[in-house]
Amino acid sequence: MTKTKIQKQYEKYVATMQKKADIESAIAVLSWDKEVNLPDNSARFRSQQVATLSGMSHELFTKASFGKLLATLKSEKKGLDKRQKRNIALTHKEYERSKKLSKAFVIRKSKTISAAYHAWLKARAANDFQLYKKELGAIVDIAKEEAELIGYKAHPYDALLDIYEPDARTSELSVLFKDVRAQLVAFVKQLKKRPQIKNDFLFKKYGHKKQWEYGLKALENMGYDFKTGRQDISAHPFTISFSPEDVRVTTRIDERDFTNMLWSCIHEGGHALYEQGLPTDQYGLPLGQAISLGIHESQSRLWENNVARSAAYWKANYKEVQNLFPRNLSAIPLKQFYKGINKIAPNLIRTEADELHYHFHVLIRFEIEKGLMEGSIEVDDLEEIWNAKYKEYMDVEVPDAKQGILQDIHWSHGSIGYFPTYSLGSFYAAQFFQQAVKELPNLLSEIEKGNNQSLLTWLRENVHQHGQYYTAKELCIKITGEPLNFKYFMKYAKEKFGEVYA
Amino acid sequence: MTKTKIQKQYEKYVATMQKKADIESAIAVLSWDKEVNLPDNSARFRSQQVATLSGMSHELFTKASFGKLLATLKSEKKGLDKRQKRNIALTHKEYERSKKLSKAFVIRKSKTISAAYHAWLKARAANDFQLYKKELGAIVDIAKEEAELIGYKAHPYDALLDIYEPDARTSELSVLFKDVRAQLVAFVKQLKKRPQIKNDFLFKKYGHKKQWEYGLKALENMGYDFKTGRQDISAHPFTISFSPEDVRVTTRIDERDFTNMLWSCIHEGGHALYEQGLPTDQYGLPLGQAISLGIHESQSRLWENNVARSAAYWKANYKEVQNLFPRNLSAIPLKQFYKGINKIAPNLIRTEADELHYHFHVLIRFEIEKGLMEGSIEVDDLEEIWNAKYKEYMDVEVPDAKQGILQDIHWSHGSIGYFPTYSLGSFYAAQFFQQAVKELPNLLSEIEKGNNQSLLTWLRENVHQHGQYYTAKELCIKITGEPLNFKYFMKYAKEKFGEVYA
Repeated sequence: MTKTKIQKQYEKYVATMQKKADIESAIAVLSWDKEVNLPDNSARFRSQQVATLSGMSHELFTKASFGKLLATLKSEKKGLDKRQKRNIALTHKEYERSKKLSKAFVIRKSKTISAAYHAWLKARAANDFQLYKKELGAIVDIAKEEAELIGYKAHPYDALLDIYEPDARTSELSVLFKDVRAQLVAFVKQLKKRPQIKNDFLFKKYGHKKQWEYGLKALENMGYDFKTGRQDISAHPFTISFSPEDVRVTTRIDERDFTNMLWSCIHEGGHALYEQGLPTDQYGLPLGQAISLGIHESQSRLWENNVARSAAYWKANYKEVQNLFPRNLSAIPLKQFYKGINKIAPNLIRTEADELHYHFHVLIRFEIEKGLMEGSIEVDDLEEIWNAKYKEYMDVEVPDAKQGILQDIHWSHGSIGYFPTYSLGSFYAAQFFQQAVKELPNLLSEIEKGNNQSLLTWLRENVHQHGQYYTAKELCIKITGEPLNFKYFMKYAKEKFGEVYA
Repeated sequence: MTKTKIQKQYEKYVATMQKKADIESAIAVLSWDKEVNLPDNSARFRSQQVATLSGMSHELFTKASFGKLLATLKSEKKGLDKRQKRNIALTHKEYERSKKLSKAFVIRKSKTISAAYHAWLKARAANDFQLYKKELGAIVDIAKEEAELIGYKAHPYDALLDIYEPDARTSELSVLFKDVRAQLVAFVKQLKKRPQIKNDFLFKKYGHKKQWEYGLKALENMGYDFKTGRQDISAHPFTISFSPEDVRVTTRIDERDFTNMLWSCIHEGGHALYEQGLPTDQYGLPLGQAISLGIHESQSRLWENNVARSAAYWKANYKEVQNLFPRNLSAIPLKQFYKGINKIAPNLIRTEADELHYHFHVLIRFEIEKGLMEGSIEVDDLEEIWNAKYKEYMDVEVPDAKQGILQDIHWSHGSIGYFPTYSLGSFYAAQFFQQAVKELPNLLSEIEKGNNQSLLTWLRENVHQHGQYYTAKELCIKITGEPLNFKYFMKYAKEKFGEVYA
C-alpha cells in the first residue's frame, strides 16, 4: 500500500474511534448528570438511554469491517509513524479481546452482575453474607469463564488484571504484595508502640460553605483548570472526562469531618489534572487516554499523599485553614495539625483507611481474588478468610459482614482485578515524587510557598502528555530509571511516619 | 398479514423510535448541560459530540428499511388500533418529508445557516443590516428551495409552517392576522388614550436569592413536579425534556427587574407541565409528544397570562411577595401591583413586549415571512419595510438595526415559519382558558385561594395526555366546540385591559 493510502485508512480508523469517543462522552455526561443532578424519580428512562448508547458504541467497535481495517493497519510495517502504530496496536488488542466475548456471554455476564448487585444490596441491608454467597459465586464463575475466553499465559487472574492494568501479571503482584505484607506490617507494628496522636480537632463542626470554598481554592492551587472543568457535589466523589477540555470533579462535604472533603477534593483533583493534561489531538485514541488505573491512581495519590499530607504543603496553607475555622484550629499549632492529618490507626473500612493501613485492605482483596481465581479459596469460606486476614494483618476483629466482606461494591459490579491498582497508584506515586524532588531541587521550597506549578509541569511532561504511548512499566523506567520498586514507598513511609511518630 | 405479525412489525417500529428517542434525549442532556454547566473553554468537543449523535439519529430514521416498515404498517387497514395508526401516519409523514431533503441539501442548508448565524452576530455587533443582507438572502433562497422540495398545495410558506405547526395554512393565518391587525391595533389605540400606569416599583432592587426561592415556589404552586424535574439558571430561559419523567426548566434573574424571573419561570413552568403530562408509555412516539409549537405555547401562555397575570392569582400570592420584598412593595396595594404587571406600552423588542403588543411583533414577522416566501418582499428592502410596519402598527420609530430587524435569532437559524406559533399559543390559551372557566365554575375562586390543582387536572385531561393523537384543530374543536377563534383572545383582552385601564 502507498503511504497516502495507508494514511487514508488510518484516518478512517481515527474517524471511527472519535465517533465512539463522542458516544462514550455522551454516556459520561448522562452518568455525571445522574450523580449530580438527576431528580428523584427520573432514573428509569435515563438507564434506558445509557443502555442504548452503550449498545451503539459496542456495535461500532466490534463491527467486522472495523476489525479488518485494524488488521490491515497492524500488518503495515511502513507508512505509519511510531505513535500511529502504538494506537493501532492498542486498539487491535482491545478489539481482539472484545471479539473473544460473544454477545451471549456479555448478556449473561450483565445479568449475573445485576443479580449480584441486588443480592449485595439486600445482604448489606440484612448484614448477612449468606444472602450474597450464591450470587458472588456466580460472579466468580463468570470471571473464571471470562479469563478462559480472553486467555492468559500463567494465571487466570492475569486476564482480568490486564483489563484495568495492562501488562500487569499475577506473579509480579504476588512479589509486590509479599513485600507489602512483610515490610509494611512490620513497620506499622513499630509505629503502634509509639504514643498515639490525637486529632479530634478535625472532627468538630466545619461549616459546609467554608469547606466548599476551601475545596475550590485547593483545586485552583493545584493548577486544576476551571475553564475546562468544574466541581459539584455528589454522594461519592469522582472524576469524569468528556474530553481533555471538559474534565469534572465532584466532592462531598461532611460537616463533622473536615478531612472527608479535603482529601477527596485533592484526590479527584489529581485524577483530573491527568485528564486535563492528555493531548487533545489524540481525542478518542489510546494516546489520548490514561495508561492504566494504577497510573491514574498514581496521579491522585501523589497530590493527596505526597503533596497534600506533607509538612511543606501545610506550611503554605495552614494559616488560611486556621483563619477559616478559628474556633476549631486557632489553638492547634501547625505541627499538631500536620500530625493529626497523618494519624495512623488500624480500621475496618478500606475507604476510611489511613495511607499505610490502606494497603493492608488492598492486600487482603488481592490475596482473596487470586485465591478465588485459581480455586484455592472457595466463596463458601470467604467471610471466615476475610475476618482471619483482618485479624492477622491489622489485629482487628471484624464485628459483622457490613464492616467486613460486604463493604465494597466492586465484586458485585463484576470488577475482579481492580483492587490492586489502588496500591499500585500509591507505590508509583512515591517513586515518581522522589524522582521529581531529585530533578527539581527547589520543589519542596516551592510547595512550602504554595506554588505547585513546577510539579504540575513536571507531571505534564513526564506523565500526562504521553497518553498510552508507553506502558506503565516503560513509563516508570523512562521517568525513574527502573520499574516499580516498593522500596520507594517504604522509604517515604519510614521517613514521614518515623518523624510523625517521633 | 396476521394480527400477531402486524403487531410484531409495530413493535419493531416502536423499538427504532425509542432508540431514536434515547439518542435525542442524550443530545438534549448535552444541550441542557451546555447552557447550564459548560465550562468556558469546553465547547469544541461538545459540539462535535452533539453533531455525531445527531448524525446517528438521522441515519437511524432515514434508513430505507425503516421506510419500508412504515409503508407496510401504513398500508395495513386492520391489525393496528387507532392510536397505533395515528403514530404510524405521523411518523410516515415525517419520514417522507425527511426523504425529500437529500443529504447534499441538508449539508448545504446547514452551511448556509452557519454562515448566516455568524453574519448575524457580526451585523448585530456593528449594528448594520447591510452586513447580514447577503446571508439572509441565502437563507430565504434555501427556505424557498426547501418548500419546493417538501411540496405544498397553495402557498410555499405552507411547507415551512407545517414543520412547526402541522396542518397550519398560510390562508388561515392570513385571516387570523388580518383580525389581529384590525381589532388589536384599534383596541390598543383606545387604551393609549387612557392615563398610563406607573410600575417603577417592579424595577427596584429585588435580591437574587429571594427571587430564586420565590420562583421555585411559583413552580411548585402550579403543580410542577420537582421529583421529575428541576430548575437551574441559564442566559436564556428554556424548557427541555429528556423523558416525561425528567423535564427541566431554566430561568434567569435580573435584580433590577422582578418580572423577568417571574414571567419566565411561570412561562417555562407551563411548557414543562405539558411535557410532564405526556404519556410515558408513548415515549419516543408521536403520541408521546406535543402536538405543535402553537399548542405548546398555549400551555405556557395560559399559565403566564391567563393565570399569573390575573387578579385572582395575585389575591392568593401578593401577600407573600410583599412580605419577601417589603422595601419595594409594602406601600404598594394589591390593585396597583396588578395594574403594574399589566401595563401596556408599545416597544421595539419582541421578547420584552407586553401581552398585547407582543402580537404586533409577530404579525410583522408573519407578513414579512409570507412576503419573502411568495416573492412580494425582497431582502434588500427588508429594513425599510420592517421600520415602516413598526411605525404603522405601533407608532414607534426604530432607531437602529439592533433594535429592529436584527433583534431575533430565528432567521439566522433558518427558522422561517416559527414566529406565528407564538401568537397561536396566546390565542389558543385564551380560548382554552375560557372553556375551563365555563366547565369548572369554582376555578377562579380556587385560583384566588392559591389552589391550581383542578386547572392542572383539566389541562392534563384535555390537552397533555393525548400527545399528538389529535391535530391542533381537532383538539381545539374537541375542547371548545369550534376551531381557533380570535374572538376569545379579544374578549379576554377587552375585559381585562378595559378594566385595568378603567
